Amino acid sequence: MSRIDPGTAMPPTHPFDDDKLHEECGIFGIWGTPDAAAHTALGLHALQHRGQEATGVVSFDGTQFNIHRALGLVGDNFDSRDIIEKLKGDSAIGHNRYATTGETILRNVQPLVAELDAGGFAVAHNGNLTNAQMVRRRLVADGAIFQSTMDTEVILHLLATSKGRQLVDRLTDALTQVEGAYSLVALSNKKLIGVRDPSGVRPLVLGKLDQAWILTSETCALDIIGADFVRDVTPGEMIVVDENGLRSYFPFPATRSRFCIFEYVYFARPDSVMEGQGVYQVRKQIGAELAREYPADVDLVIPVPDSGTPAAIGFAEEAGIPFELGIIRNHYVGRTFIEPTDQIRHLGVKLKHNANSAFIKGKRVVLVDDSIVRGTTSNKIVEMVRNAGAREVHMRIASPPTTHSCYYGVDTPAREKLIAANMSVDEIAALIGADSLAYISIDGLYRAVGEARRNANDPQYCDACFSGEYPIPLLDQESGSPAQLSLLAERV
Amino acid sequence: MSRIDPGTAMPPTHPFDDDKLHEECGIFGIWGTPDAAAHTALGLHALQHRGQEATGVVSFDGTQFNIHRALGLVGDNFDSRDIIEKLKGDSAIGHNRYATTGETILRNVQPLVAELDAGGFAVAHNGNLTNAQMVRRRLVADGAIFQSTMDTEVILHLLATSKGRQLVDRLTDALTQVEGAYSLVALSNKKLIGVRDPSGVRPLVLGKLDQAWILTSETCALDIIGADFVRDVTPGEMIVVDENGLRSYFPFPATRSRFCIFEYVYFARPDSVMEGQGVYQVRKQIGAELAREYPADVDLVIPVPDSGTPAAIGFAEEAGIPFELGIIRNHYVGRTFIEPTDQIRHLGVKLKHNANSAFIKGKRVVLVDDSIVRGTTSNKIVEMVRNAGAREVHMRIASPPTTHSCYYGVDTPAREKLIAANMSVDEIAALIGADSLAYISIDGLYRAVGEARRNANDPQYCDACFSGEYPIPLLDQESGSPAQLSLLAERV
Amino acid sequence: MSRIDPGTAMPPTHPFDDDKLHEECGIFGIWGTPDAAAHTALGLHALQHRGQEATGVVSFDGTQFNIHRALGLVGDNFDSRDIIEKLKGDSAIGHNRYATTGETILRNVQPLVAELDAGGFAVAHNGNLTNAQMVRRRLVADGAIFQSTMDTEVILHLLATSKGRQLVDRLTDALTQVEGAYSLVALSNKKLIGVRDPSGVRPLVLGKLDQAWILTSETCALDIIGADFVRDVTPGEMIVVDENGLRSYFPFPATRSRFCIFEYVYFARPDSVMEGQGVYQVRKQIGAELAREYPADVDLVIPVPDSGTPAAIGFAEEAGIPFELGIIRNHYVGRTFIEPTDQIRHLGVKLKHNANSAFIKGKRVVLVDDSIVRGTTSNKIVEMVRNAGAREVHMRIASPPTTHSCYYGVDTPAREKLIAANMSVDEIAALIGADSLAYISIDGLYRAVGEARRNANDPQYCDACFSGEYPIPLLDQESGSPAQLSLLAERV
Amino acid sequence: MSRIDPGTAMPPTHPFDDDKLHEECGIFGIWGTPDAAAHTALGLHALQHRGQEATGVVSFDGTQFNIHRALGLVGDNFDSRDIIEKLKGDSAIGHNRYATTGETILRNVQPLVAELDAGGFAVAHNGNLTNAQMVRRRLVADGAIFQSTMDTEVILHLLATSKGRQLVDRLTDALTQVEGAYSLVALSNKKLIGVRDPSGVRPLVLGKLDQAWILTSETCALDIIGADFVRDVTPGEMIVVDENGLRSYFPFPATRSRFCIFEYVYFARPDSVMEGQGVYQVRKQIGAELAREYPADVDLVIPVPDSGTPAAIGFAEEAGIPFELGIIRNHYVGRTFIEPTDQIRHLGVKLKHNANSAFIKGKRVVLVDDSIVRGTTSNKIVEMVRNAGAREVHMRIASPPTTHSCYYGVDTPAREKLIAANMSVDEIAALIGADSLAYISIDGLYRAVGEARRNANDPQYCDACFSGEYPIPLLDQESGSPAQLSLLAERV
Repeated sequence: MSRIDPGTAMPPTHPFDDDKLHEECGIFGIWGTPDAAAHTALGLHALQHRGQEATGVVSFDGTQFNIHRALGLVGDNFDSRDIIEKLKGDSAIGHNRYATTGETILRNVQPLVAELDAGGFAVAHNGNLTNAQMVRRRLVADGAIFQSTMDTEVILHLLATSKGRQLVDRLTDALTQVEGAYSLVALSNKKLIGVRDPSGVRPLVLGKLDQAWILTSETCALDIIGADFVRDVTPGEMIVVDENGLRSYFPFPATRSRFCIFEYVYFARPDSVMEGQGVYQVRKQIGAELAREYPADVDLVIPVPDSGTPAAIGFAEEAGIPFELGIIRNHYVGRTFIEPTDQIRHLGVKLKHNANSAFIKGKRVVLVDDSIVRGTTSNKIVEMVRNAGAREVHMRIASPPTTHSCYYGVDTPAREKLIAANMSVDEIAALIGADSLAYISIDGLYRAVGEARRNANDPQYCDACFSGEYPIPLLDQESGSPAQLSLLAERV
Repeated sequence: MSRIDPGTAMPPTHPFDDDKLHEECGIFGIWGTPDAAAHTALGLHALQHRGQEATGVVSFDGTQFNIHRALGLVGDNFDSRDIIEKLKGDSAIGHNRYATTGETILRNVQPLVAELDAGGFAVAHNGNLTNAQMVRRRLVADGAIFQSTMDTEVILHLLATSKGRQLVDRLTDALTQVEGAYSLVALSNKKLIGVRDPSGVRPLVLGKLDQAWILTSETCALDIIGADFVRDVTPGEMIVVDENGLRSYFPFPATRSRFCIFEYVYFARPDSVMEGQGVYQVRKQIGAELAREYPADVDLVIPVPDSGTPAAIGFAEEAGIPFELGIIRNHYVGRTFIEPTDQIRHLGVKLKHNANSAFIKGKRVVLVDDSIVRGTTSNKIVEMVRNAGAREVHMRIASPPTTHSCYYGVDTPAREKLIAANMSVDEIAALIGADSLAYISIDGLYRAVGEARRNANDPQYCDACFSGEYPIPLLDQESGSPAQLSLLAERV
Repeated sequence: MSRIDPGTAMPPTHPFDDDKLHEECGIFGIWGTPDAAAHTALGLHALQHRGQEATGVVSFDGTQFNIHRALGLVGDNFDSRDIIEKLKGDSAIGHNRYATTGETILRNVQPLVAELDAGGFAVAHNGNLTNAQMVRRRLVADGAIFQSTMDTEVILHLLATSKGRQLVDRLTDALTQVEGAYSLVALSNKKLIGVRDPSGVRPLVLGKLDQAWILTSETCALDIIGADFVRDVTPGEMIVVDENGLRSYFPFPATRSRFCIFEYVYFARPDSVMEGQGVYQVRKQIGAELAREYPADVDLVIPVPDSGTPAAIGFAEEAGIPFELGIIRNHYVGRTFIEPTDQIRHLGVKLKHNANSAFIKGKRVVLVDDSIVRGTTSNKIVEMVRNAGAREVHMRIASPPTTHSCYYGVDTPAREKLIAANMSVDEIAALIGADSLAYISIDGLYRAVGEARRNANDPQYCDACFSGEYPIPLLDQESGSPAQLSLLAERV
Repeated sequence: MSRIDPGTAMPPTHPFDDDKLHEECGIFGIWGTPDAAAHTALGLHALQHRGQEATGVVSFDGTQFNIHRALGLVGDNFDSRDIIEKLKGDSAIGHNRYATTGETILRNVQPLVAELDAGGFAVAHNGNLTNAQMVRRRLVADGAIFQSTMDTEVILHLLATSKGRQLVDRLTDALTQVEGAYSLVALSNKKLIGVRDPSGVRPLVLGKLDQAWILTSETCALDIIGADFVRDVTPGEMIVVDENGLRSYFPFPATRSRFCIFEYVYFARPDSVMEGQGVYQVRKQIGAELAREYPADVDLVIPVPDSGTPAAIGFAEEAGIPFELGIIRNHYVGRTFIEPTDQIRHLGVKLKHNANSAFIKGKRVVLVDDSIVRGTTSNKIVEMVRNAGAREVHMRIASPPTTHSCYYGVDTPAREKLIAANMSVDEIAALIGADSLAYISIDGLYRAVGEARRNANDPQYCDACFSGEYPIPLLDQESGSPAQLSLLAERV
């Protein structure tokens, strides 16, 4: 069983994130339960917010690997007992993917699988390698034939050509040659392996369900199957699970942890716990810091649904102003929708949102959103709220201005498209038509995650999208390669 | 162009309403704008919550009628410029359908269209006729051939065989012969017509966009296209729009208005205004009444997402207890999902919800939901919240106990499936495992909609699902016919 | 079960008949066997040459009617045990359809089914009614609502509104009001009925398989299920099969039989027996007559595949010249094919045929084809054979010049598109580039079917496409209605 | 553009060859015309008989390679101008595939494409390598990662890892390491290359269309685009076309040519010319030899359609007995068909064929077929003809008994399924119920292709399926590997 199904031909776009950054992937691996594939599919469903374009599961049944990969949502592709039953075995890994090219192509759907000399090997990757193109060119010169344009595939070829004797040695050998952000789960015919890059940019957690071990991106994927959260995988740690149990290795040189602070702002699900902190509480705390830094003299606090809601609740509590659903979201979005004709312009956000005009009319309101990326939506939301009769419309943003692109596994527009890289806050306020606009300060954000302030010499988190300080070298970038290996998809 | 496309073969179920009643239809009609079909599709998109199984639009272009009907969501079926461009014309009507049989069948998708002697005629219907089977049997005996099993089709045949000279006379003649709840929009080659049954059970509103008139189920469908809300159509009123403008008729004997009170509780979108009241405010008010009638000594007020949220906000405000998102919803549901195997039981609500355990742990909480129908979900939600560490879990319901089936266009389980028809509140509380459970009183509900109390002799609303008092005779029921005409779908 | 599936979205065109007339339908009915639907599907498969655009089967299982109708081939739509098993019952009827409008639309797929006062009734029709539009207008004026644009539906409405007491009386009443060519099979909850119009233009045969009676278009549909051929249904005969056995009625005034002579020329399968004569033998005999009337001094006799083959064998035998496969056909055609670009012109027939140049080179050849309709293909075939090296290319046609349109159930181009209606034989010969061209004479054709000659005063067959003498009045035509009722499909 | 579309999900089986061997592939390449992809699609259409399960085209446009591969027929997959226009470029290659595993899987669809150090490289292969598994194991041990289970992929990896400097050297290097039968067309960003293995088992011809060079399996693919046939590619020859024109290399040690004699018997299209002989003439000549070796005293010669027809014409001419179409084929087969229920057994061949009983009754007939493989169909055909009333039914086979499997690119059943490997001719005659049965002798077959007799010491053709003498070593077979590399498809 090795089909790649087209699944839902046109996967729905993330319904509510027109102007947001996109996490590229969610991963899940499990070892030691007869329902490995079903648990993996459920875990991927809980991680659906980390990637909606494609999904895949690989299981090992003691004899062979079984694969099902498809474009579209987990729930649309693992919807039959038939599929789950064919994914036999006590161990499995899975992957959700957000497409980084305009079009997700089937051969780029993960997990990747290779038949190595020692047997089959499957891998699922969250993050992005920053020297993938340099390594790929070297491998091709040595005769390697790539089947995809994913950075992840260089790991497979480095593994295949490593002279190490044991799989763990060979994988270490391979990872030593790559730079970048990665959380990996991998499956051989004997082992489940999880690795987090030395900087720990992307999350990876360890869980347990009875005797089965689980490695996955977020704790919400443990909750859905009733598994216990054991601990975060440590940056630079390789965890190996096999019939002898679980072992932990630290094969890389030690370095400073730099967890992505944007996971707290937007990427992670609010019910997940990351690096010891509940995401919902952090978001409420950001809202409270924001209310202290930039108060607003208004009648109502209104979240921009849905991602602005926790910060809006925190803001409202701190400010002592009523929290109200002033913007109603349409739950049903569909794959796409009619292109507006000339006569039906300015529809914009109305396909997804409507201002609750009967409630808003005559009120002074503050809208709370988590971030502004290109600035294409905020003006429409402000206009919609104002047209609904609001007397004043203020806006507060629960993150600092997004001024730099991410190269560690997040789909960010080029800098020239980032509004805060090109305009001042006042200019943005004027552009979106808000009576006032404020972003939380970078130190305010660090306070919300429990730090006294940002350590400017050696920041506690990766905040490159706000600061431009990239903790891991951007080797492909510096050598003039196109931004993303996946652009090669256009070539063949 | 008269194809019925299968569209999305397996339409998504209403994502968040496992244990809710289902409104059966939403309707929209527009007269006098070159983008009639595009506006209709947008209006139907805003009414998607009133029916997700099928959708259709019929336009008239001065020469011919153009049709596109399909299973699935509006956004999935009107997603190409091609389709919209073929639906030429300055007038159009449309319909969203919730299936009342297990399987929506294509020939039951509305609007219905017929080629009458006087020309084409299309109709879209929200509601349910209570004597449709009696009338149908009579028509068939006289030689009529039905193409569907919809109650709506009897109106077409009554119209076709009426001896009236003008369309309005013939439609009046037809409607005089039917009983039940109906809001209709109809389109001929000369007129747009809207009718609301004398009891006004189902909503219908009048709007205006520049020179174009609109008739639709809810004001949110006016908002999406930027139209102005003019007024509710009066119960028993027939509105006729043609090249001479708009006229209003009252062709039926006057009777007491009995608007469906459940529209406020759950069916309508919170941003709609119905019969002069904002739905969101009514729901908050229900929550406030509930807090007064049945307070709870707790730390947090948590909504059961998403329909419980406005009442929870009202409850929290009234009680002075923090409102918190203690249950997180997965936005991505997909068409279906793997059937849980024996080893993965009790998943239940976890596909859609997760308790925010990091926040809830050790707290006393009250959950606020809008209604309990069969009682199949509440126990899982209570259990999930308790497992997440809540010290006490109380539940408050923003409607009285649902004890009777609806025959006026809402899909209700048979009485033996309605938990409140078979158990006391205490028994239900025990069953769902709540530390306490309370429903708002019927008078409390009437207070929330602005009445002093329910007038027991002549209730101001249709509340048959709570009271068992049916304002319109159930003729088919009483004559022993099967509950719904559409069950005949099984026959041919 | 009442779905209409789209089946193969783009049904293959008749693979080998670019320039042929098209029979519009094949029908089949069976009574008294537990495998009624499976036998019907097999019979329709054997009749696939009579219509490829859509197919349908209706069965009756003692309680209800079961339907499966779809666009595309029989073998593509009745390919699962699942479908056949749902078509339960001991009696069934079925239909193959050739589309007469550009696009087959689902609601025009037969058998047509109606729920009459007396119970369900299904009908399948081969032929065409010549007063369908007149009758339809009258019925609509009386309040009938049509669900299709098929002429056949008027029969249903006439039946529904008949005052006759028994089904047979009502059907007789209905058929008395229509004019035209029809062979029908119909199924009620008690009877299988077969009718052939008084002129007997379209074929209908009676067969028997053990205790089961069969009514179908051609004997090849009996052969496939191993049934015995009993006899042709007589023109004007109504056969009724029920639990009391088979009865025969002659409810119409007697008239001269006028069987379609073109069935022998092209429509029927060569292994069928029609009106007592084997079709293959008749075609060989036409070839022999042609060789006598218009001999050719050549080296090889080459059929234009596949329909010219029997006549070519007859010609070769009579002339004593070798019969050879000088034109090879590609068995694989696919739904459509790339449109030739400017650089790839003149491909024409090469997608389907290739001249066997190694064999033809330097030879004098005669090509034998069954008919020339618009003349769009013959020139390409002659050119292809000449380019392959033939020294002389003669052409013989096994039917007289096709000069008139058919209104009795055959899809013919309008007269201005019929080449023989607009050019002399010499002009056609010049146009197609043949060294000589000859058509069999009308008397030669009559001799081949066993007559001494055509009886000019009262022809033994319907030969209107050659003679312009229409045996049944063309009432809709004469009243200025558009040629085909199905053109109304464009209206709604 | 690099999608692999599923195309027609269930491709039609070869319509008329229930009991035949299957050629596995047809190939086509063209260099030097702006319509390279369109010409390639047309050529593949003409080669459809060599493989119906999947098809693909790769073009090079001066900058990049463009690919379209899909399951199903050429005509179904290259049916839009859109697809052809995306396949830009002046050079292209293409491939038709017959699946050798039960299920064609998308990653095994050719042409194969790799991004090599020197640039892109595409290859299409007809034949089978007999040491592919041995070579593959060695390559995997050295770190190669295979993306398919096709034997062809070893050539790509040998090429990628070759130390040769020029592409031609590297390809020669690669091919020197493989054994087996292969005709290849390959495309780099600079060259079109064609190679035929030293034994020349599979065909490959050279053609020219204006300035464009063509390399393809059969001359019928030249005819369809109006190209001239130049010559057969010589066994062991490598032809290289680039901007400098055409060059010919002979890089392998010389050996005896062993062209597959079964190409004449069945695989090739009758209008193709192979190794200097017209296929149709050879087949007629086989029929004539058969009539001399094994005459039959009968009234009619009847071909088993369609592959037996040329030999039947030759037999009839030689014997002076009339040739008649005694078996009529149904042109319409569809993808599959209902599984016969218990009550409808013995349908067998009737879905495809029907005996022309009106003609056959009372006659003595000889049936001529090209081959009998498993013997599953012949008994049904004999029975059908006998039931149609034939007085005697004799059978003549236009090839010697098929007693051995092919390992050179033809899908043959295992020996235990080959009827002639397990039964004598008399036993087979009894089994199929023929009054007499005879196969042409091996020397008779050699005479029909123009030889005096088979040279037993050094046969002029590969006739291993008749003789068991394999001209190329079966290395994988001998080392105990499973018969076909593609069985590994089950593994991952």
